[in-house]
Amino acid sequence: MKLSLNQATIKYADLETALRVTREAGIASIGLWREPVAEVGLVRAAAMVADSGLRVSSLCRGGFFTAVDPALRRAALDENRRAIEETATLVGAAAPGSAPVLVLVAGGLPDRDLPGARARAADAIAELVDDAAAARVVLAIEPMHPIYAADRGVISTLGQALDVAERFPTVGVVVDTFHVWWDPQLAEQVRRAGPRIAAYQVCDWITPLPPDALLARGMMGDGHIDFPAVTRLVTEAGYAGDVEVEIFNQAIWDADPLDVALRTVKSFEGHVGA
Amino acid sequence: MKLSLNQATIKYADLETALRVTREAGIASIGLWREPVAEVGLVRAAAMVADSGLRVSSLCRGGFFTAVDPALRRAALDENRRAIEETATLVGAAAPGSAPVLVLVAGGLPDRDLPGARARAADAIAELVDDAAAARVVLAIEPMHPIYAADRGVISTLGQALDVAERFPTVGVVVDTFHVWWDPQLAEQVRRAGPRIAAYQVCDWITPLPPDALLARGMMGDGHIDFPAVTRLVTEAGYAGDVEVEIFNQAIWDADPLDVALRTVKSFEGHVGA
Repeated sequence: MKLSLNQATIKYADLETALRVTREAGIASIGLWREPVAEVGLVRAAAMVADSGLRVSSLCRGGFFTAVDPALRRAALDENRRAIEETATLVGAAAPGSAPVLVLVAGGLPDRDLPGARARAADAIAELVDDAAAARVVLAIEPMHPIYAADRGVISTLGQALDVAERFPTVGVVVDTFHVWWDPQLAEQVRRAGPRIAAYQVCDWITPLPPDALLARGMMGDGHIDFPAVTRLVTEAGYAGDVEVEIFNQAIWDADPLDVALRTVKSFEGHVGA
Repeated sequence: MKLSLNQATIKYADLETALRVTREAGIASIGLWREPVAEVGLVRAAAMVADSGLRVSSLCRGGFFTAVDPALRRAALDENRRAIEETATLVGAAAPGSAPVLVLVAGGLPDRDLPGARARAADAIAELVDDAAAARVVLAIEPMHPIYAADRGVISTLGQALDVAERFPTVGVVVDTFHVWWDPQLAEQVRRAGPRIAAYQVCDWITPLPPDALLARGMMGDGHIDFPAVTRLVTEAGYAGDVEVEIFNQAIWDADPLDVALRTVKSFEGHVGA
């Protein structure tokens, strides 16, 4: 397995620092976020990525498609079209073996109509498919843990993400251990996903849950997830790309980013890689 | 729909208080918990229930079946056999229309082997089926929201609960809106459940999640759940029993129990009942 450091794991590092510590930790790939890219501007970010010699494993993130208001909906689609262009530009500048993947989070509930919000998310993806194909970018739907169904992501299971993705030849899915580890249908849905697995992200589910449930993610080995079992499923389904470590955790964010990158390598080798 | 007040909603009230405020609020049914029953002893509790004239809609709760250690496993099974007897005794003393239902929570993960824990939970239920049938008690598997898969309940979806329940003629399931509202397969699984729906519990999913995720439940109308939609599914599946309001929420627990019972009636009539 090939490790990639997702920038969210070192959230407070700017792009220059993130690229540097990734390289210094001996990691060959990085998962980028739009915000630190925007801080330096896309053109300069692409040059920095090119200079780094790193692969790019994905860009986080597009999505947030569930608004009812037509103006908000148009704004979200426009924002996603910019994200598609950014993905193409950044990956085009990165080392060979990079993945032109834009991670999509569906968005939460503006009202109590869950089926309606889910339908709007699917419709928005349909509207973006041609733009993504033209840019040779893979839209990757990330099912989110049901804990986030109300306020962040109404696509809650891998099976549900595949129900949307399979309508289009070029739409993929993200398998993130944090979001899917509990799913009784995980094995069958990962097999079903097969070549649609566009990204594989790992971090652990820790208990007790921290007070901010958004930051309830741990370094691999600190929680309850059987990484070898999930990795085996993903590998047997044919996924051979980079494996992103993406951890939202205040204590990890507060630590030195190079230390975090080095701990990530160690945790990955001990619990995920083989 | 017939409202039942689950004792957990007024957690700090003893059994006598709970029976009294339920009656005073004009509610005809109560969902009991083992701990307040044990405080007064089973015989006296049954007499108090008989005197109250209330129906009993369920006893919470059995389960916690996932221990690996054989001694712990035997202890859990013995405890569940006691809970089966308690269910039969309490329901036998209660008003006609009561439901001899013991709610089962699977238990959490003792290690990282999620499939193993799930198999042990199913095996334990198999061991209890004859005892339950002899006591004319329905074992009701409660799928728990995936947020609790690690530390409380490894049975995470209604479909998974039905996969276990359907092995036995007399095992049912609990549909609790808090646990199942996010499930993309909810409609099809409620239809599949049909007569196996042994209890219907309601409370709301509120955001932001409180710091203690165990207490993240709200009064109906305070959160994101579309109760009429879930109620319609459950009713169309043939369920005609009591509807328990079960809310774990510190602010509600700290309030006067009669006030809570009265608020429960109002919230139920406004958002769930029809």
